[in-house]
Amino acid sequence: MATLFTGIKQLLTFAGDLSPRAGAAMRETGLVKNAAVLVEGGVIEAAGPRAAVARHRLAKKARVVETGGICLPGFVDSHTHMVFAEPRLKDFSMRTAGATYQQIKAAGGGIISSIGAVRGQALKPMAAQLARRAARFLECGTTTAEVKSGYGLSLDSELKMLRAVRDAKKLTPLELLPTLLAAHSVPPEFNGDARKYLDYVTAEILPKAAAEKLAVFADIFCEKGYFTPEQTTAYLKEAARLGLRPKVHSEQLSNYGGTRAGAAAGAVSADHADHVYAEDIAAMRDAGTIAALLPASNYYLGLNKFPPARELIAEGVPVALATDFNPGTCPCWNMQFVLSVACTHCAMTPEEALCAATVNGAWALGIGDRCGAVIPGLQADLAFFDADDYRELAYYFGGNQCSLTVKKGRIVHAKK
Amino acid sequence: MATLFTGIKQLLTFAGDLSPRAGAAMRETGLVKNAAVLVEGGVIEAAGPRAAVARHRLAKKARVVETGGICLPGFVDSHTHMVFAEPRLKDFSMRTAGATYQQIKAAGGGIISSIGAVRGQALKPMAAQLARRAARFLECGTTTAEVKSGYGLSLDSELKMLRAVRDAKKLTPLELLPTLLAAHSVPPEFNGDARKYLDYVTAEILPKAAAEKLAVFADIFCEKGYFTPEQTTAYLKEAARLGLRPKVHSEQLSNYGGTRAGAAAGAVSADHADHVYAEDIAAMRDAGTIAALLPASNYYLGLNKFPPARELIAEGVPVALATDFNPGTCPCWNMQFVLSVACTHCAMTPEEALCAATVNGAWALGIGDRCGAVIPGLQADLAFFDADDYRELAYYFGGNQCSLTVKKGRIVHAKK
Repeated sequence: MATLFTGIKQLLTFAGDLSPRAGAAMRETGLVKNAAVLVEGGVIEAAGPRAAVARHRLAKKARVVETGGICLPGFVDSHTHMVFAEPRLKDFSMRTAGATYQQIKAAGGGIISSIGAVRGQALKPMAAQLARRAARFLECGTTTAEVKSGYGLSLDSELKMLRAVRDAKKLTPLELLPTLLAAHSVPPEFNGDARKYLDYVTAEILPKAAAEKLAVFADIFCEKGYFTPEQTTAYLKEAARLGLRPKVHSEQLSNYGGTRAGAAAGAVSADHADHVYAEDIAAMRDAGTIAALLPASNYYLGLNKFPPARELIAEGVPVALATDFNPGTCPCWNMQFVLSVACTHCAMTPEEALCAATVNGAWALGIGDRCGAVIPGLQADLAFFDADDYRELAYYFGGNQCSLTVKKGRIVHAKK
Repeated sequence: MATLFTGIKQLLTFAGDLSPRAGAAMRETGLVKNAAVLVEGGVIEAAGPRAAVARHRLAKKARVVETGGICLPGFVDSHTHMVFAEPRLKDFSMRTAGATYQQIKAAGGGIISSIGAVRGQALKPMAAQLARRAARFLECGTTTAEVKSGYGLSLDSELKMLRAVRDAKKLTPLELLPTLLAAHSVPPEFNGDARKYLDYVTAEILPKAAAEKLAVFADIFCEKGYFTPEQTTAYLKEAARLGLRPKVHSEQLSNYGGTRAGAAAGAVSADHADHVYAEDIAAMRDAGTIAALLPASNYYLGLNKFPPARELIAEGVPVALATDFNPGTCPCWNMQFVLSVACTHCAMTPEEALCAATVNGAWALGIGDRCGAVIPGLQADLAFFDADDYRELAYYFGGNQCSLTVKKGRIVHAKK
């Protein structure tokens, strides 16, 4: 049976070509006032002015849900590290009490603690925990999220993380797209030998993840002390050869060349981009690589510098926003907060931020042809918010305004 | 009938003397694991280890609510501007698009727009709107909030704002404590003559607000271009003479002397404190004035400087945290986000932040003898969170972890 979501004060359709949005097009929200969305079989049948949608042949017998408020495409969160065994509460307490990162590391904290915890966790509780976390994303209006491995850093534990994503899909309606991030860091047993570890990843982990179809993407952390631009390009090309679409963590801590290295390998997105220069921006634009910005982590780390969204937009690079949800540098699952920090700290307009969190988020996952906009024929992934004006979603911050979440036509979260 | 909230993983009681907490005492949370809280008649009867509470004579026949998670005293938000007619979305859009504050002002934005909107709004919709906002506070675990006037700046409109608070009390279970902030700014019709306007406030508004018992507190914005320290002390002393407890907005934009001026008048709290020096801190400590910090506004404004919580705590001043919820500089109603920003940007520990948001928040309103802690005999104002460790409330950010809110023993919010 069809469902008619109606009484919507403002609907942002982001209707238009099925393509990433760049420049001024990021401000074109496709706003419809007093709107309705008709869905059937998990697909959007019609979306637009209430009266027009009501005349659709399926509208007569549809179940009617009077939603009020604001309707958007469900958020597409293109960058998360949602699988981890434990929050890093001890690190957090040490940091607030004045400890340096070196002191936290010396106390067994940092990524090492996440690696130990993930290696020690069994698959089943890992998947169950992931599904519980997924519920928090859904209740904040996110309908699709990428999930990275990268806290195992061994064949078994990296595959376990990816299998947890696979298994969690049966436990949550949140759509999860897995990314192999075995090249996240060099695990302690390799004593800092990044080349040797990357050879191991390339020979052992990558082919198995590809053969078992456990990952859609391959990602690598290109940074001083981690993996070089040369290693990044070679690794991502090999991943692409095996059918995994390249992504890259680049220019997060310094300008090191990761963005260009990723673009050279055809990366679908280059993520963070805090320290990009003109040549990195040009490389992204020319390669069709989306810039996925993660400013909530800058907030959490107390940084004064934020990703240069304005320069990227001015140069015609499609910008996406994602949470970077992870236990070390960004314990935030709410895309609404990312809208806030993008507007208040990256000078993005509410319209640009909303586009970046939906349409361009979908394109950062290569799935903008099936979700990220409210267009007939696309997946019926919708998020509704208790507000009168869509700008309130970026203006009010620190809370959750989502009242209803719809995934493939089904109500998967409803605030009572 | 009594209610037994049980199965609590961690209960923070903040038990101890009924007094503001300063220095190391701010880290004493009174943590009880596997705990229960028994309430009857709106009052806490017992709180502590589950087994011990279960032996209480009233526990046998009590309604049992298995909550799990974390239990805290409900947040006491000691500084809000929760009455306003419209969110300042146009200002927000202009700011993100690069407009300066002067340009926003020239376009009719800033506080002037809030004044116009409040003057034009009728009492009844104002009260109804306030009650709807109150629901958002409740769902985030806040059980008591102060509410300031200050967007009317005329006799009628200031009293209307305070009457809206009075009337909203019948529409929401959130406990609201009204503050007269007629001395917020100089309204346009006084052409910048602060002295003349303050004389008018003192002669016309203050006595009427006091006579009708519309406000518990009187507050004033002491800052260059607003009201001087001398005016602040004199005004607050007159307010105190009429039965309104003094509060002060001070040292927000510069070091100007407002904190000392407030302390000299016996202010219960001095709020903001971004630019306090040693002599201001000493004045607060000596006068028993609470420092109410509002760091969420610093986040929203994109400032690099945050209130110096560590210095205040080191010098023995009790620190409270509040949202500063308002349409211009802090559209945030969630005290959980304030915990986050206090820990990540003010170097407060999670324990200090939680104390500042509960016990010391209550003392910033002079009501720490009846709420702000989970102690037998106090109001049964409780907030429950879906977490395993209380530190998660400050660690995860940008969302709402509150699962259940109890006001005077009654469940007033439950996440389904």
